[in-house]
Amino acid sequence: MEILTDEILKKVIQKRASASHKGTYGRVLIVGGSANFGGAAIMNALGAVQAGAGLVSVATDPSNFAALHAQLPEAMVTDYQQDFSDLMAKQEVILIGSGLGNQLDILKRVLERVQKNQILILDGSALTMLSQNPIKLPDCQLIMTPHQMEWQRIGEVPIADQSREDANWEALVNFQPEPILVLKSNHTQVYAENCVHQLSVGGPYQATGGMGDTLAGIIAGFVAQFKPLKDAVLAATYIHSAIAEELSKKAFVTLPTTISAQLPYYMKKYEALQPEDMPIKG
Amino acid sequence: MEILTDEILKKVIQKRASASHKGTYGRVLIVGGSANFGGAAIMNALGAVQAGAGLVSVATDPSNFAALHAQLPEAMVTDYQQDFSDLMAKQEVILIGSGLGNQLDILKRVLERVQKNQILILDGSALTMLSQNPIKLPDCQLIMTPHQMEWQRIGEVPIADQSREDANWEALVNFQPEPILVLKSNHTQVYAENCVHQLSVGGPYQATGGMGDTLAGIIAGFVAQFKPLKDAVLAATYIHSAIAEELSKKAFVTLPTTISAQLPYYMKKYEALQPEDMPIKG
Amino acid sequence: MEILTDEILKKVIQKRASASHKGTYGRVLIVGGSANFGGAAIMNALGAVQAGAGLVSVATDPSNFAALHAQLPEAMVTDYQQDFSDLMAKQEVILIGSGLGNQLDILKRVLERVQKNQILILDGSALTMLSQNPIKLPDCQLIMTPHQMEWQRIGEVPIADQSREDANWEALVNFQPEPILVLKSNHTQVYAENCVHQLSVGGPYQATGGMGDTLAGIIAGFVAQFKPLKDAVLAATYIHSAIAEELSKKAFVTLPTTISAQLPYYMKKYEALQPEDMPIKG
Amino acid sequence: MEILTDEILKKVIQKRASASHKGTYGRVLIVGGSANFGGAAIMNALGAVQAGAGLVSVATDPSNFAALHAQLPEAMVTDYQQDFSDLMAKQEVILIGSGLGNQLDILKRVLERVQKNQILILDGSALTMLSQNPIKLPDCQLIMTPHQMEWQRIGEVPIADQSREDANWEALVNFQPEPILVLKSNHTQVYAENCVHQLSVGGPYQATGGMGDTLAGIIAGFVAQFKPLKDAVLAATYIHSAIAEELSKKAFVTLPTTISAQLPYYMKKYEALQPEDMPIKG
Repeated sequence: MEILTDEILKKVIQKRASASHKGTYGRVLIVGGSANFGGAAIMNALGAVQAGAGLVSVATDPSNFAALHAQLPEAMVTDYQQDFSDLMAKQEVILIGSGLGNQLDILKRVLERVQKNQILILDGSALTMLSQNPIKLPDCQLIMTPHQMEWQRIGEVPIADQSREDANWEALVNFQPEPILVLKSNHTQVYAENCVHQLSVGGPYQATGGMGDTLAGIIAGFVAQFKPLKDAVLAATYIHSAIAEELSKKAFVTLPTTISAQLPYYMKKYEALQPEDMPIKG
Repeated sequence: MEILTDEILKKVIQKRASASHKGTYGRVLIVGGSANFGGAAIMNALGAVQAGAGLVSVATDPSNFAALHAQLPEAMVTDYQQDFSDLMAKQEVILIGSGLGNQLDILKRVLERVQKNQILILDGSALTMLSQNPIKLPDCQLIMTPHQMEWQRIGEVPIADQSREDANWEALVNFQPEPILVLKSNHTQVYAENCVHQLSVGGPYQATGGMGDTLAGIIAGFVAQFKPLKDAVLAATYIHSAIAEELSKKAFVTLPTTISAQLPYYMKKYEALQPEDMPIKG
Repeated sequence: MEILTDEILKKVIQKRASASHKGTYGRVLIVGGSANFGGAAIMNALGAVQAGAGLVSVATDPSNFAALHAQLPEAMVTDYQQDFSDLMAKQEVILIGSGLGNQLDILKRVLERVQKNQILILDGSALTMLSQNPIKLPDCQLIMTPHQMEWQRIGEVPIADQSREDANWEALVNFQPEPILVLKSNHTQVYAENCVHQLSVGGPYQATGGMGDTLAGIIAGFVAQFKPLKDAVLAATYIHSAIAEELSKKAFVTLPTTISAQLPYYMKKYEALQPEDMPIKG
Repeated sequence: MEILTDEILKKVIQKRASASHKGTYGRVLIVGGSANFGGAAIMNALGAVQAGAGLVSVATDPSNFAALHAQLPEAMVTDYQQDFSDLMAKQEVILIGSGLGNQLDILKRVLERVQKNQILILDGSALTMLSQNPIKLPDCQLIMTPHQMEWQRIGEVPIADQSREDANWEALVNFQPEPILVLKSNHTQVYAENCVHQLSVGGPYQATGGMGDTLAGIIAGFVAQFKPLKDAVLAATYIHSAIAEELSKKAFVTLPTTISAQLPYYMKKYEALQPEDMPIKG
C-alpha cells in the first residue's frame, strides 16, 4: 500500500503548452441527473469544468438545463432520453451514473456505444444498476467510484471485508477489463495496477450529499487532461479531499460546490514547470 | 427561565468522528414551497444543508426545482403532489409547512405516515392548517416554530398573553405528545422540558421575509446531527440569531440567505474537542 | 432648488426599534416583468428586499419565477394574469410598470383597486400606457419615476424644456393627486411638495440597462419603511446613485445588481441613533 | 504586423461624458443559444453587459430565459423563433452565431434585415452555416470571429496555412464588404484595414469551452460604445486575454464567466482622462 501525498499533484498537474486549444484538454460527457437528482449532474459538471476539462456536455433530464446553466453556462446540455450517440462518439471521457436513478435503458445505450479508446467512469446509479442486471461492460478503460454500500452491491464484498485488500482485489478480477477502483469511505482507497493507494487527506467535514458527485466530476476533468490515467485518477481523488481539508480549517462542513470552486486556485499551486511558451515572433 | 448564551453552541456542536459518513449526519425531508412561496423551501434547504445535515431532500412544487438547484445542487427534489412515502420512510427529520400554503391533503398525507422514531418540525402553513382543521398529531418527537400570530391561532394564546410563560405552558399541554415550542418574536423563546429558554441575541435587522424559513431549516439540520434533541433546537435557534447579530455590525438588514451562508464558518468556531480521528494504518 | 446631500440619509435611515417585526417594515407588491423583460421585476425585487422592506411579492409572468427565486428566494411570486386583488389589499406599497410591456388590462386592474392608504409607484411601461390611454389615476399617494423620454410622453414636457422647473411643475398640476416626481436624467431631480431636489451624486457609469428598475425597487423599499414619504423617496434616490458613485471608483460601469447588493452595508453607515433596544428582562 | 499592447486600452476606453444615457452606449442584440448550447448566449450577454453596453437583448431558445436571468437580469430576452425584426431595427450591434446550431432560417432572417448602419458580428454556428450555404452577406460593417477550424471552413484557408498573413488577406478579399477578422488561436490575430494585429497576452489557461462566446460578447460591448470600430475590436480582443493572463497568476484555468466578471474593474484602470463632467448648476 502506498500513502498518497501531494507528490501526486506535483507529478500530474502540468503546465499547459502554449500550442494547445480546448480540444487538447479533452471532451467530457456526463450522463446523469434524473428529474429528482439533477443536482448530481450539476456537481459533476462543476467539478469537470473547474478542473480544466476542455469541453463538457451534460446528458440529463431537460428539467435540469436551467439550473445547470444558471450555475455554469460553460457546459452544454442534451436530453438523455434522446439519442446522443453522435455526441458520445466525440468524447474522450464519459461519466455515467451520478443521480441517474434506475434508468436501465440509458445505461445500456451508453455502454453499448462506448469505444475502445474512450475512458468510462461508472458512478452511483450506474453501479447499482450493474449490480442488479446482467450487463456486459464495454472493452475500454474503466473507472469505478463506488462508496462502500455500492461496492458491496457490485463487488459483492461485504462492507466488513472491504478493509481487506485481498478481498477487494479478488472482486476486481471479476470485471474485465479490470477497472481502476476508487473505493470511497472515510479512508478512501484507489486500487489500480496492482497497488492500493491510500488517501491521507480529507475528513468527516466531507460527509454531506453531493461529495461523491463532485469527486466523479473532478476525476472526469483530470483524466481528460492528464496522463497516465492511473496518476490522473489518483491526483483527482487526492485534490478533492486536500481542498476539503484546507477549507475545513475554517468550515464545519465543506460543501461540494465550495470544493470545486477552489479547483483552479489549488491546481495553480501545483502547476509544474514545463517547456516554456514559445516567444511570439514579430 | 434561562438565558441562552453561546455555551449552548460549545455544548452541542461536536467535532465529527472520523468513522462517519453522510448517513451519520441525518436525512432531512423538507415539505413546503407552493408555486407562490417556493423561496421558503429553498431557504429551508439552504439552512439545513449549510448547517451540515447529511442528506437533504425537498418535496415541493415542480416549478421550484430549477431555482432550488440553481441555489443548491446539493439538495434532492420530488414533486409534493406525488406519493413520496418511500422517501419519507428513510428520513430522520421531516420539516413541513414553510411556504406550503393551504394544502391540507399534503399535510394529512405526511402526518399519517410519520413514524415514532422520526422528528417532525411544524412550521408556517402547517401550523395554520392545524389550527383550522381537526387533525391528530402523530406520535413522534414534535417541534413547532410559530411566530406570534401563528401561536395565537394554533395555541389559542392571544399575542398579548404570550409574554406570560404559564399561558404558553398551559397551551402546550393540549398538544400530545408535547412539542418543543420555538416561539418566534423579537424576544424569541424556546419552551422545552419544563424550562423556558430566552434568546439574548438577534434584533430587528432580522425583521424581513424568509427569516423564519431559514431558522426552520437550521433547526432541521441541527436535530439531524446533534443530540439531545432539546439542546440541538436551542443551539440552532441561538446560532441563527447570533450570526445575524454578527452580520448586523456591518449590515442594516441581514437577509436570510446571507445568514445561512455563514453557518459552516460560524459553526467551526464552536466545534468542540472530540475523540481524535483514528490514525490511518499503513 | 435644494441640492441633495447625505444629510437625507442621516435623517431617514433610522435604527430599527427592537419591538418590531417584518410587518413593521412594510409589504411591497411589484407588478412587472413580462416574458421579455422579466429582469426588470427581478431588479425591482432585489432593490426592495436589500433595502430592507419587510415582505416583498412579485406579480409577474410565470416564466420569471425560477430566475427570481434563483436570485432571491426571499421574495414571493404570483402570476400577474391571475386575479391578485387579495394580495394587493394587504400591501402598503405597490410598484407597477418596470418591464411590464403594453399590458393595459393589468395596469387597469391594479389602478382600480389601489386604496387610499396605499403608496403607488408608477414606473416604465405603466407611465407609457398612461400617456397613451385615458386612465384615471387612483386617489392615493403617487410616485412617478420617468426618465426624460417617458416624462415627455406622460407629462407632455419636451425634453428640451425639462431643465425648466416651471415647465415640470406646470405639468405636474395635471395629475391629481399630485405625485412626487422622480425625473431621471444625468442630473436626476425630485419634484415634491413645492421643492425641487437636485441629485449631486451619480454619473455616467450608471448608464446601463436596469438602472431605473433598481431605483424603483429601492424607492419601494424605502417608502415601505421610512417616513415621511417625501424624505423616503429623496433618500432612496440619493442612496442609489451614492452607492454607484462609490462603486465607480473601482468600476467602469456599475451594474444595477451590484448596486442593490451594497444596500445593507451602505445603509448601515447611516443608521441613526434611535431609542435603544429595551434590555431583555430575565 | 503590429503587436497589440495595452496602449490600445488607453486609447479606446474613454471616460464617459456626463451628458449621456444608456442609449449613448449602444444597443446590442445577441442571436444565439439553441436548447443545447444556451450557455453560449448567456456568456455573450455577460461579456456585453459587463463591458458596459447600454442595452443588451438576447434572442434565444425560450428554455434559456430562466438561466440567463438567473445570471444577468440586466439583459432582455426574446424567442428567436418568433419575428424580432422590430427589435433588430433598434440595434447598433448584432452578434449572431454563438451556440446557435444549424438554424439556417434564423441566420437568413437576420442577415436579410441587417441595415447598412449596423455592426454585424458573425461567430460560431453563423460562420459554419455561411461556409455551407450560399448566403449573401449584408452590406454593413462586418466582424468575423472564427477559430482556426471555422476559418478553414469559411475562409477556405487550411489551418496549416493560417500562419501566412497573405493567405488570410487573400481569403478576406472574397468577403464583401471586407470584414474585420478576429482569427482565434493560441496566437490570436486581428486582420483589419490592411494591418495584422498580433495578441501578446493570453495563454493556454484560456483553452476551455465558452472562451470564444465571451470574447464575442465583449467585442459586441466594445463596438457598441467605442470608436473607431477597428480600435474597439482590438481593445476588446486584447482585454479579454489580458484579464485571463492576470487571473492565470492565481488560477490554472480561467473560466469565461470569471473573465467577464472582471471587466468593469479592469476597464476602470484604463479609463482615459476626458472632458470633465459639467458642474451641476444650483
